[in-house]
Amino acid sequence: MPGLIKKMMPRQDSFFTVFSAMGNNVHLSAKALLEMLMDFSNPQAGAEKVKDIEHENDVLMHNLMTKLNQTFITPFDREDIHELASEMDDVIDLIDAAAGRLVIYRVDRVRTGVTDLAQVLLEATAEVAAAVRVLQKRDGILDHCIEINRLENEADRLCRTLIAGLFDQEKDPVEIIKWKEIIEVLEFATDKCEDVANVIESVTLKSA
Amino acid sequence: MPGLIKKMMPRQDSFFTVFSAMGNNVHLSAKALLEMLMDFSNPQAGAEKVKDIEHENDVLMHNLMTKLNQTFITPFDREDIHELASEMDDVIDLIDAAAGRLVIYRVDRVRTGVTDLAQVLLEATAEVAAAVRVLQKRDGILDHCIEINRLENEADRLCRTLIAGLFDQEKDPVEIIKWKEIIEVLEFATDKCEDVANVIESVTLKSA
Amino acid sequence: MPGLIKKMMPRQDSFFTVFSAMGNNVHLSAKALLEMLMDFSNPQAGAEKVKDIEHENDVLMHNLMTKLNQTFITPFDREDIHELASEMDDVIDLIDAAAGRLVIYRVDRVRTGVTDLAQVLLEATAEVAAAVRVLQKRDGILDHCIEINRLENEADRLCRTLIAGLFDQEKDPVEIIKWKEIIEVLEFATDKCEDVANVIESVTLKSA
Repeated sequence: MPGLIKKMMPRQDSFFTVFSAMGNNVHLSAKALLEMLMDFSNPQAGAEKVKDIEHENDVLMHNLMTKLNQTFITPFDREDIHELASEMDDVIDLIDAAAGRLVIYRVDRVRTGVTDLAQVLLEATAEVAAAVRVLQKRDGILDHCIEINRLENEADRLCRTLIAGLFDQEKDPVEIIKWKEIIEVLEFATDKCEDVANVIESVTLKSA
Repeated sequence: MPGLIKKMMPRQDSFFTVFSAMGNNVHLSAKALLEMLMDFSNPQAGAEKVKDIEHENDVLMHNLMTKLNQTFITPFDREDIHELASEMDDVIDLIDAAAGRLVIYRVDRVRTGVTDLAQVLLEATAEVAAAVRVLQKRDGILDHCIEINRLENEADRLCRTLIAGLFDQEKDPVEIIKWKEIIEVLEFATDKCEDVANVIESVTLKSA
Repeated sequence: MPGLIKKMMPRQDSFFTVFSAMGNNVHLSAKALLEMLMDFSNPQAGAEKVKDIEHENDVLMHNLMTKLNQTFITPFDREDIHELASEMDDVIDLIDAAAGRLVIYRVDRVRTGVTDLAQVLLEATAEVAAAVRVLQKRDGILDHCIEINRLENEADRLCRTLIAGLFDQEKDPVEIIKWKEIIEVLEFATDKCEDVANVIESVTLKSA
């Protein structure tokens, strides 16, 4: 095959490799956050661990965009590739935002129930990682999407319960400000996992 | 006409039918919210009514996306169809968020002026419903868009007045946290009606 | 050249002229905000100055969208033109939101460090204006994007320090609510400058 044509041919698998690595980062960042919440002895170290993953994903994101701009034929719509990568990056940014706030708000004790919400988020990110891992072969990909939707509904219900409880039990307005935001950021991260699932579902149906 | 060709031909009218149904849901959800605010004797029931509309619209949205992915020729740009439906869904999500917060914050009395803001939102959603109803024939469609823009400006002014009044009059920081958010969510819902108008305007001008 | 063909030919330079004007507005609004913060004797007048720029940019935005819908050939992807203009408009909206809040919250004294954040935002907007000014010729355009990224990181660090300091030093929850939001809106405006840089970078790489 002549060199030029070869260059223009898709190296489709490498897009999928980057997506897998990003899905893995999504999952690892949620794992680092949950560990930080479960053993809150050194939140600074926990937040730094999440931040490292966030930086690493920024590099992946930047390389993917460069690659996307320089590739002639892509394995699926350019817009969908961009959106899928952006949404995964957003999940990590939100997990990093939650971890960062636990530090700058000088939280000294994790409120009951917040760890449960981070656990649901971890499960949703595990499904995100699993879904992007089978993006090329598509085996059972829609089942992962359905499961992400179910977990998002669970996170939504849990978030409402936690916020209602916060306003019922907490008398210090400053504590309400801090925890309301941390809880909402965690719920928003799960929302973003659902956005990832929606892009994956759309990509899968288009080429069905 | 052979079966396959028939299958590939656009059933354009059905996209417009779904948009009409969505516009109707946008309007109905704003109506349910205003009724909830005007007779605040059973906020839980009011919030459930809004939530039912929100769920119903989720189903419409999901079906539209499936249809979009499986249709060869669409009545206008796929991206615009997606965006128009998403923005309408966002309006309903925000109205649902406002109704939900009135419940989980255990609000016992609606603050003066908030009902006025919900009234402006209702008027904007009536224009959204009217605009998408004439999306195919285009009769007077831009007038609806102009009216939505006017109502959004009115909501914006009202929101600023309500927030200023809240900080002036309310001494309890927890009440400020609750009402600031409810007011902002209502204003954001009107903003989203303007985004709907912008997509409609763009679609209309493209095919002028 | 026949009239019709001439009409269909791109008047490419005029898109670039509008972008330059918008970049200029981004910079002018940040300048008006910083001046308002540095001499806080008449915040109302300062906020009106920002609002005037915001209105002026709305007109530019509307004209650009009309032009985009009626132009056959565009100097780069329609989606990118739309996104670049929208992101610049968002920066101005956020600067206007910050100025508006300083008025409606009846702030009487600017907190230490907030002016520094507005200064970083001003520098980022200067780079935005410079980058869109060379959008056609591309001279040193990527250097402006790199500088915007650096300034966004600086704003992010400053924002975290300011928020941590706010919770440490301020005992009045209402003051925390007000300043937390003003600081976050300023940081979000710098984030949006980075989004502008990302679109510019993407446009530049595509046509490299």
